[in-house]
Amino acid sequence: MGILSAEREVEKWDVLEIAVSGKSDKNPFVDYGITGVFAGKNETVTVDGFYDGGGVYKVRFMPSFEGDYTFRITGTFSDEEFEGEFRVTPAGKENHGPVRVANTYHFAYEDGTPYYSIGTTCYVWELQSDERIAQTLQSLKDSAFNKIRFCIFPKHYDYNLGEPRSYPYEGEPMDSRVLTRDNFMRYTGGSEGNKWDFHRFNPEHFRHIEECIWKLRDMGIEADLIVMHPYDRWGFSQMTAEQDDLYWHYVIARFAAYRNVWWSLANEYDLFEHKTIADWERYAAIICEKDPYRHLRSIHNCITFYDHSRPWVTHCSIQRQDLYKSAELVNEWREKYQKPIVLDEIAYEGNIEHGWGNITAEEMTRRFWEAACRGGYPGHGETYLNEEDILWWSHGGVLRGESHKRFQFLHDIMCQTPGIGLKPYAGSRFDEVCAVPEEAAQQIKQVKDYYLFYYSFMRPSFREFYFDEETEFEVRVIDTWNMTIEDRGRRRGRFKVELPGRQYMAVQLKKA
Amino acid sequence: MGILSAEREVEKWDVLEIAVSGKSDKNPFVDYGITGVFAGKNETVTVDGFYDGGGVYKVRFMPSFEGDYTFRITGTFSDEEFEGEFRVTPAGKENHGPVRVANTYHFAYEDGTPYYSIGTTCYVWELQSDERIAQTLQSLKDSAFNKIRFCIFPKHYDYNLGEPRSYPYEGEPMDSRVLTRDNFMRYTGGSEGNKWDFHRFNPEHFRHIEECIWKLRDMGIEADLIVMHPYDRWGFSQMTAEQDDLYWHYVIARFAAYRNVWWSLANEYDLFEHKTIADWERYAAIICEKDPYRHLRSIHNCITFYDHSRPWVTHCSIQRQDLYKSAELVNEWREKYQKPIVLDEIAYEGNIEHGWGNITAEEMTRRFWEAACRGGYPGHGETYLNEEDILWWSHGGVLRGESHKRFQFLHDIMCQTPGIGLKPYAGSRFDEVCAVPEEAAQQIKQVKDYYLFYYSFMRPSFREFYFDEETEFEVRVIDTWNMTIEDRGRRRGRFKVELPGRQYMAVQLKKA
Repeated sequence: MGILSAEREVEKWDVLEIAVSGKSDKNPFVDYGITGVFAGKNETVTVDGFYDGGGVYKVRFMPSFEGDYTFRITGTFSDEEFEGEFRVTPAGKENHGPVRVANTYHFAYEDGTPYYSIGTTCYVWELQSDERIAQTLQSLKDSAFNKIRFCIFPKHYDYNLGEPRSYPYEGEPMDSRVLTRDNFMRYTGGSEGNKWDFHRFNPEHFRHIEECIWKLRDMGIEADLIVMHPYDRWGFSQMTAEQDDLYWHYVIARFAAYRNVWWSLANEYDLFEHKTIADWERYAAIICEKDPYRHLRSIHNCITFYDHSRPWVTHCSIQRQDLYKSAELVNEWREKYQKPIVLDEIAYEGNIEHGWGNITAEEMTRRFWEAACRGGYPGHGETYLNEEDILWWSHGGVLRGESHKRFQFLHDIMCQTPGIGLKPYAGSRFDEVCAVPEEAAQQIKQVKDYYLFYYSFMRPSFREFYFDEETEFEVRVIDTWNMTIEDRGRRRGRFKVELPGRQYMAVQLKKA
Repeated sequence: MGILSAEREVEKWDVLEIAVSGKSDKNPFVDYGITGVFAGKNETVTVDGFYDGGGVYKVRFMPSFEGDYTFRITGTFSDEEFEGEFRVTPAGKENHGPVRVANTYHFAYEDGTPYYSIGTTCYVWELQSDERIAQTLQSLKDSAFNKIRFCIFPKHYDYNLGEPRSYPYEGEPMDSRVLTRDNFMRYTGGSEGNKWDFHRFNPEHFRHIEECIWKLRDMGIEADLIVMHPYDRWGFSQMTAEQDDLYWHYVIARFAAYRNVWWSLANEYDLFEHKTIADWERYAAIICEKDPYRHLRSIHNCITFYDHSRPWVTHCSIQRQDLYKSAELVNEWREKYQKPIVLDEIAYEGNIEHGWGNITAEEMTRRFWEAACRGGYPGHGETYLNEEDILWWSHGGVLRGESHKRFQFLHDIMCQTPGIGLKPYAGSRFDEVCAVPEEAAQQIKQVKDYYLFYYSFMRPSFREFYFDEETEFEVRVIDTWNMTIEDRGRRRGRFKVELPGRQYMAVQLKKA
């Protein structure tokens, strides 16, 4: 029995990592196992570790409680067993724990702080050059985004014909010099010319991603990890079931202890020609078994929704299914699935040739407000053509659009919601979106504490309100595009609110 | 037997009117009848006449063929019978005859000229002052509108609390001085305070409307007559079945001979509390029996569609049912009803408080293009607040918006369609509306003579096209908002069309 002097202190919801040397003969990724058991007063957690190359094995643990813990590391990786102890200190000021589902349709950090998701998508930002990554992190820092979707595997697609900075496996990729914008679709077979050992991971690839997750965490950004995706010329989307399962175990062992990780099983699961629903269900089962922290789990569609009512699906990760109605459908999806509705793709602001990537900033911002006021969570992306072919949606870099500048304003207003989350008010008029707190009474006639009316592309010059004779409201007129808030004083009874007759206006009423 | 010297010549599809004196004792509207039989080489038409007041009865006839005709007038209105003859001369240059359904989903004048409907709505423009009417006619003359919807009965609604210039019946209306914007909904009962003789029409009311129809005809504008509507404080929407039928007979006898008349049975039939489907079917039967010219017939909804598959319905007169998708649904309505789809209400350009009346000019123009490129027919209206409360949608007057300035441009392009009418191309990509001629081959792979691609609010910076190696196309890039057409020369094989990355662009391809 070895006694390990691990770091002696770790913050609650931070990562305690135990690194030990072990056997490096045979194939350590496959032939040896390592397990850790972490025990404190309130929890005993068993997690798998992983081989990190160079004869080093690691086990990571995220404590959910303060106080003294012990641990014990065992496995075939070594003839020795290891144990030790450590203390979990209170969470730091910016550390609210992992994000959980709250109030059925919403999210909150584990410490109870509401989490209003403002997502963006940069599929392989972390597989670009150091310089580009630094630029992306700076862009994120300057933005309101608190969630980012990205892939572990590199991406092969239009505007994505380059090589990633590293590969997840040992081996060699096909020769990408043959690729052009015209022929790239021919190279999605996945086997041609690639030489990978799907039983030997490249730890450097994963260490780098961990570093990126860590940096996101320090900026308060959730890492919505897309573990599989179909835009592939390397064969990573066409591995065998045994290879897939090995990958899933490795990914979970490495990433699960990071509190800001979300599991997105796939981007566009329905485009995988070689996977069945049984495969996706098997991956989900692996997560449920191996992730003791119950990170959020979702699976994203291209055309056909996955059955989001499956119990392992914590929230709906939706790509809009209709060119004209996207955020507007949040109401019916909420009703159908009774889970948080995250609109991870509602088209991107930009001007590329594809219809999913060329809406205006105004329309993107409108979709954000529509989604938010309907009690859903919108997601952003940017696809502006530029000389270097560096598109935010895939590569990160700099933000070129206008919508992202409006999201902090929206987020600030979302944070004013009493309780956790907004819901679409059943008593709203046909030509408005009216949000009330999720906890508000179901009775239509019962006056709520808070109303947020959104008029979308409509341009009323005024609106009239009546709730009852007594209740006094603080009235504010919000220009969601120009980001102004006008205080209109206190009103009661029947009252009229003058509006500028422009698009994208909102009216906020707070019970005084 | 009296021999009448009627006007001896009339143009084909013009109105021949026979006026004769008759009995004026009792109630001539009810107690006496008059019928005309008009016979030429190709047709013998029997029509009812009507009492026009002052002891005068009239019978009107619209001939559909050139050549010599005879007529014979009989009835209880007189102890005499009358007969005579006249000659029908060729239609004048601007006279194409009544509009008919053509190619299942489209319209053409009876002489075969395609009719691309560009409609507007001014519910009671003709019941305003002479000055206002003259202003409306001038606005229409300066516009591209070739159809206008309006009511025979006056309208009671928000912004419509004034009195009409005349009433359809003898009697007295309720005292409208009690009305305010806040209480007007209480006065839709219809009986309170009104004193009408529903068996005695006011011929002046109808003569004035005829004059308006005539003036529209001379400008090439179809008069889509809304014969009944629910926005009523006078009781005209709550008459008995016998009174309704009397009204329908009178309306048809007076108006049917005008070639530019369309019958809209109702605006928002589903808001009539006192009418059943059986009533609407009975009115339709009266039209089918009494209108020998088979003018177009439709019935307009508020929320619930009438069953447009009823055989008497010549085309669907649709009010959009969804706040976000309107013109976009033309495809499915075409498929469902196999009739022309006329979008008589897709919201109005304006800034009033109601969501049906405050969209932007850009959005209205977009809906026009969406509808047109999907093989449907869009309709306009304007509801801009102004000091006089004169809103085009109801009163006519001047046009204050921006969308109407773009309709001539659209109409010119619609007129370039080979054959009659466009249809949505089944082989279009998900992010475009592609129109091809209605007559084009069903086979997707067969290259068509003509394509009109519309990109709506999307902003592609370019699009790529490929049909086959041989076919050469004349390529034009259309900015539907700025009304510019750029000639891009002739292209064949695989070709790329650069676009400005703005909204509302279209690409027109004509086989060279």
